[in-house]
Amino acid sequence: MILINGENQQGIDCTDRGFQYGDGVFETLEISNGRVVYLDHHLNRLAVGCQRLLIPTPEISILKQEISGLIQSHARSVLKIIITRGVGGRGYRQPETINATRVLSIHPFPDYPADYKTEGVNIRFCDTRLGQNRRLAGLKHLNRLEQVLARAEWQDRNIQEGLMFDSEDNLIEGTMTNLFLVENARLLTPQLDQCGVDGIVRNIIIELAQVNGLIIEELRVSKARILAAEEVFLTNSIIGMWPVKNLDGHAFGIGEITRQLDTWLDDFKQKDCQNGL
Amino acid sequence: MILINGENQQGIDCTDRGFQYGDGVFETLEISNGRVVYLDHHLNRLAVGCQRLLIPTPEISILKQEISGLIQSHARSVLKIIITRGVGGRGYRQPETINATRVLSIHPFPDYPADYKTEGVNIRFCDTRLGQNRRLAGLKHLNRLEQVLARAEWQDRNIQEGLMFDSEDNLIEGTMTNLFLVENARLLTPQLDQCGVDGIVRNIIIELAQVNGLIIEELRVSKARILAAEEVFLTNSIIGMWPVKNLDGHAFGIGEITRQLDTWLDDFKQKDCQNGL
Repeated sequence: MILINGENQQGIDCTDRGFQYGDGVFETLEISNGRVVYLDHHLNRLAVGCQRLLIPTPEISILKQEISGLIQSHARSVLKIIITRGVGGRGYRQPETINATRVLSIHPFPDYPADYKTEGVNIRFCDTRLGQNRRLAGLKHLNRLEQVLARAEWQDRNIQEGLMFDSEDNLIEGTMTNLFLVENARLLTPQLDQCGVDGIVRNIIIELAQVNGLIIEELRVSKARILAAEEVFLTNSIIGMWPVKNLDGHAFGIGEITRQLDTWLDDFKQKDCQNGL
Repeated sequence: MILINGENQQGIDCTDRGFQYGDGVFETLEISNGRVVYLDHHLNRLAVGCQRLLIPTPEISILKQEISGLIQSHARSVLKIIITRGVGGRGYRQPETINATRVLSIHPFPDYPADYKTEGVNIRFCDTRLGQNRRLAGLKHLNRLEQVLARAEWQDRNIQEGLMFDSEDNLIEGTMTNLFLVENARLLTPQLDQCGVDGIVRNIIIELAQVNGLIIEELRVSKARILAAEEVFLTNSIIGMWPVKNLDGHAFGIGEITRQLDTWLDDFKQKDCQNGL
């Protein structure tokens, strides 16, 4: 089921700047027990993304109304929201009047094996780089060719994710996840001031660490640094947290800090769901 | 008029990866006196772009047939061709079977004043950077947010183009044009190994320079270097060549080499049109 500007339809105007230039942002939300998880976080990030791209932010009340209708009878699923700069003429210049396009769609929840969460996942390094651009850094925008090319680097179904470096050899994130490591009992995560996606669960983990007195730092992470880490884990809104058990042949244990954060995250998610739609 | 996979329609499936991720490439071609200018150059670049993005290249004979039909009664216009990875599920991983989408559309030819070509244009530097990524460098792909943001930096109608630097302060190109400068009677143009679009007219200019015994170099270009240049000009498939008369307040004359190249380019275009569709 797909809603385009409130209408149940599948076809988007091909002059939409989302199609022409990837000119927009998106969000991917978990629907769990018929509730939208982290809804306010997602709507906030969507608004920030629109503001930074100079796209009028859609009315939150309309979005919430459409979401409510759409998730009926989809108790466990994925909701995707796309906002674009809308229909516009040929050329990069923005139209004088911008009528943003909003697309809401429901997708099956991916059936990841339960042991990804309990036993950890196998991951690799990708060759495809993330270009540095301060104006796009952090945004979940529609220009995703770097992720598509990185994800095309492996076919092995035993590899669940690939890590990407920026053009200056800083490790940034996975193709669809953010990255954390534990070093001397401190929690570290790559700085996202030059590229990368400012993940919802990433920010919740940072907050949970701070609230609970863990040391948490955002910094540059090299390949050598992650290989020397005590614990490594990945986050996103659909998977929550996945511990990493193997990175390109290098084994990691699932440590105490990862386990602790996973428990805190579960609690946080439970409470969040009680407040949301 | 728009042809989507050969059908006259306006709506694209919103699960198309062109819309979801900017997962595709495009070409913008001039139709002049009912002829497609530089058709083979464009089709070659389209094929190279598809190959590098691992998208099946559309059949050239089908494209030519569709183009022939489409340009009837559009003697002077712009033809845009978009090729995407087609419809695919949620997630960056490519579908196992890729059915590329092709979209051909006809647009009015932009009515640039004639004196842009004869007297030159006013341009500026942009703040928005081009991220470096060797795997995307040179491609005319659908991830164009950097150009959209750069083009949104100015509203002044007396400014016709903005120049963009990469994340390491190298000058690369305009938002929609390639860049050339003349220094000590040598023709220089930025290297495009890290980012930028490998322009059709850019390559023709390089070839014309070589054939006619001009020294031409592709290299790193700094801000200081362009400000010290004797001549500066811009190229793309729709404008051909525009001399630059003013860059952020710094004046340039229209030099002999620019004039000479413009004449050679006109001749080249005439001959090309006689061979094409």
